[in-house]
Amino acid sequence: MYLDYYSQAEWAKIINFATDRETPFLIVILERIRNKFLLFSNNFPNAKIYYAVKASPGIEILTALRDLGAYFDVASIYELDRVLKLNIPPNRISYGNTIKKSQHIQYAYQQGVRLFTSDCEADIRHIAKVAPGSKIFLRLIIDAVTSDSDWPLSRKFGCQPRMLIELALLAKELGLQPYGVSFHVGSQQREISAYDAAIAQVVLIFEQLEKQGLKLQSINMGGGFPADYITKANTLPTYAEEIYRYLEAHFGAQFPEIYLEPGRGLAGDAGVLVSEVILIAKKSRTDLRRWVYTDIGIFNGLMEAIDESIKYPLHTDKTGPTGEVILAGPTCDSLDILYENFKYQLPLSLEIGDKLYWLSTGAYTASYSSVEFNGFPPLTTYYI
Amino acid sequence: MYLDYYSQAEWAKIINFATDRETPFLIVILERIRNKFLLFSNNFPNAKIYYAVKASPGIEILTALRDLGAYFDVASIYELDRVLKLNIPPNRISYGNTIKKSQHIQYAYQQGVRLFTSDCEADIRHIAKVAPGSKIFLRLIIDAVTSDSDWPLSRKFGCQPRMLIELALLAKELGLQPYGVSFHVGSQQREISAYDAAIAQVVLIFEQLEKQGLKLQSINMGGGFPADYITKANTLPTYAEEIYRYLEAHFGAQFPEIYLEPGRGLAGDAGVLVSEVILIAKKSRTDLRRWVYTDIGIFNGLMEAIDESIKYPLHTDKTGPTGEVILAGPTCDSLDILYENFKYQLPLSLEIGDKLYWLSTGAYTASYSSVEFNGFPPLTTYYI
Repeated sequence: MYLDYYSQAEWAKIINFATDRETPFLIVILERIRNKFLLFSNNFPNAKIYYAVKASPGIEILTALRDLGAYFDVASIYELDRVLKLNIPPNRISYGNTIKKSQHIQYAYQQGVRLFTSDCEADIRHIAKVAPGSKIFLRLIIDAVTSDSDWPLSRKFGCQPRMLIELALLAKELGLQPYGVSFHVGSQQREISAYDAAIAQVVLIFEQLEKQGLKLQSINMGGGFPADYITKANTLPTYAEEIYRYLEAHFGAQFPEIYLEPGRGLAGDAGVLVSEVILIAKKSRTDLRRWVYTDIGIFNGLMEAIDESIKYPLHTDKTGPTGEVILAGPTCDSLDILYENFKYQLPLSLEIGDKLYWLSTGAYTASYSSVEFNGFPPLTTYYI
Repeated sequence: MYLDYYSQAEWAKIINFATDRETPFLIVILERIRNKFLLFSNNFPNAKIYYAVKASPGIEILTALRDLGAYFDVASIYELDRVLKLNIPPNRISYGNTIKKSQHIQYAYQQGVRLFTSDCEADIRHIAKVAPGSKIFLRLIIDAVTSDSDWPLSRKFGCQPRMLIELALLAKELGLQPYGVSFHVGSQQREISAYDAAIAQVVLIFEQLEKQGLKLQSINMGGGFPADYITKANTLPTYAEEIYRYLEAHFGAQFPEIYLEPGRGLAGDAGVLVSEVILIAKKSRTDLRRWVYTDIGIFNGLMEAIDESIKYPLHTDKTGPTGEVILAGPTCDSLDILYENFKYQLPLSLEIGDKLYWLSTGAYTASYSSVEFNGFPPLTTYYI
C-alpha cells in the first residue's frame, strides 16, 4: 500500500527512522520537497513560485527551498520574521494574506516587502499609507468553481469583479502599483477546469482595466495543487499543460506573467505521520465496527480531518482480512473523531501498540497542532 | 450588554486592564472561578468536585482551586505533571480520560494516582496490570439525551450498559475496585432532564451489579454544567435542585456519593477575550452584510466557534443602529470563519481598530490555540 506513495528506498528510510521512537511524530523527507519544487519549476518554466509558508513552516523546509531559488508567501509578520531570519531577501517575499493590521503592513514594508495582496478598500488605503508605491495583487472571489476542492476557500477571501476593478483604479490613484489579479480555486482542487473558469474572469478584468488606462502585468493563481491523498488527482504536468492551454485560449500567445503559491502541492507528499494504536474497543458485544483510538487526532496534527475533509492514506504493517473501523484521537473531546462516516478498513489482526502511518501528511498538520489541548504537546516534527 | 454578564466593578477592572494592551488576549478573573467553585460546593454539599483541568489549565487557576480544596481530573499525564508540580496530592487527582496508553497509566500510578475511568476491556486490563487495586469508574455511553447540548460527546466515550456490567465484574475479578458509574450528558447541556435519563440507567446498573455481589459506591456525573453564553441556561442552583430530585426519585434517600467534573461550568464565565477589528469589508457594492475580520479566530482561541457551536456574547463600546455581520478570523483559511449562519448584529458605527470583547470565554479557548498556524502565536492569557 505504501508503495503507491513512496519508493521502497524512501519507505525503508522512514521505517528505519521511526523504529523505537515515541509516537506521535511527523517525518518530513526534504528531498521530496526539493524534487517537487523542481517539478513545479520545470512544468511552469516562466512562473514565479512562492511557497505558501503556512502549509509547513519548518526552518529546514524554508532553507531547502531558499537554496533552490524559491519565493515565499507569508500569512503574517510572524512568518515574515522567520523567513527573513534565514537571509531570504524581502524582494523574494509576498504578504499574501488579505487580512492584516495596518501596523503589520507597515512592519513588513519596513523590512523591505513590496508585494501585497488585497481585496477591500480599507486594506488598500492602509497599504497606500504605510507601504507607499507597493505592488498589489487584487484578489478575485471564486464562488462557483470550488465544487471539487477538498478544502474550498469560500467567500472569506476576494471580492467581486466589479469591485476589484474599482479597487485597482483606487490603488493606482493612491500611488500604488496595481500589479495583477490573484485567485485561489480552493485547496486540493481536483477539477482542473476550475482554473479555466477563473482565468476567464481574469481576462475580462484585464481588458476592462486596460480600457481605463491600467495595464496589469500578472496573474497570481495561488495554490490548489493537490497532494496525493486517497482520492486521486491528476499529475502536476497535467495541471500545467491544462493551465497553459487555458491561458493561451483566453489571452493568446502573449499571456501575463504567472505567480503560483503552492503549499500543500509542494509539502503535502513529503510527510509521514507516525502514530500508535492506544486502544481498540467495541461499545457493546454486538457492535459492528471497532473504535480504533490513536495517539494522533484532530488537535495534535490531523486538523484537516475535521468534517472528514482530507482523507489520508493509512498504512499498517499488519495484513490479512480487514474490517471497518472508526478512527478517533486521544483527547476527551467528541470533535476529536477522525473518521466515522468514511469507512477506513483495517486488518482484523490490528493490535494495541501497532503503528499507524498516515501518508501525505506534510502540509497543514504540525502547524495546526494545539498548543496544549488536554495537555498533549504539539506534534514533533523530524526532517530527514 | 456586558452588564448582563459582569458587574460594573468587574467590567471596570477588565477595561482598565485591557486598555493600551496589544490584542488579542484573554483575561481570566480568578475571583469568579473561586466564587463559582464555592457555588458548586454549596449547592452540591456532599459531592466531590473535580475540576476538569482541560477546560483551562492555567497554573493560576489550578492554584486558586487547590487552595479551596478542589479535586482535579486530568486528561493526560502532561496535565497530571502540571497538577502535581503545584503540590496537589495524588489522592486529589483522577485520570478520567478513557483513552490512555498503558505506559501512561503506569506513570500515573507511580505518581500515586489511584482513580481511573474506563470503558473497554483492553483499558481495564491495562489498569489491572500496571495500576493494581485502583478504583475504577466505568463510563456509560449517553446516546439519546444530548439533544440540547452545544457540544455533545457522542459515542466516542463510554459503553453500553450490558457491557459496562461485564466490565465492572471483570475489573473486580482482576483485583481492581469497581467504584462507580460515570457519564457525561454533553458539554453545555441546557436540558437538565438529561441527567434524569442518565441516572435512570445508572440505578439499573447498580441494582444488577448488586445482585451479582458487587456494590458500587458512587456516581460520577462528569460536567455539562453551562457557562453563560447567548443561549440562556438555568442557574446552577436549579441544576442542583433538579439533580438531587432525580437522585432521590431513583435511589431513595440513601443515594450514592456524587462526583462532579465541571470544567466549562467553573471556568467559562471567568474569561473575557479582547480582540480588535482588523478590517471591515463588503464583497461588492451591494453586499448586504459586512465582513468583520478580527485578530481572533478559530485557530488562536475560538475553536469552539467551529460549526458555530458555542455562541459567545459579544460586546463593543460602539452604540447606535446595528446591522448583520459575518465574523471571521485572521488566517488564510476558510475554516477560520466564526459566524456566518448565526447573525451577529453589530453597530453600523463599528470601525477598524475597535475592540471586540468576547464574554464568557474562560473555558476551552487558550488551550485549544494552534501552536503557530499562519505564524500567529497561541492566545496570551492574563490572570487578574
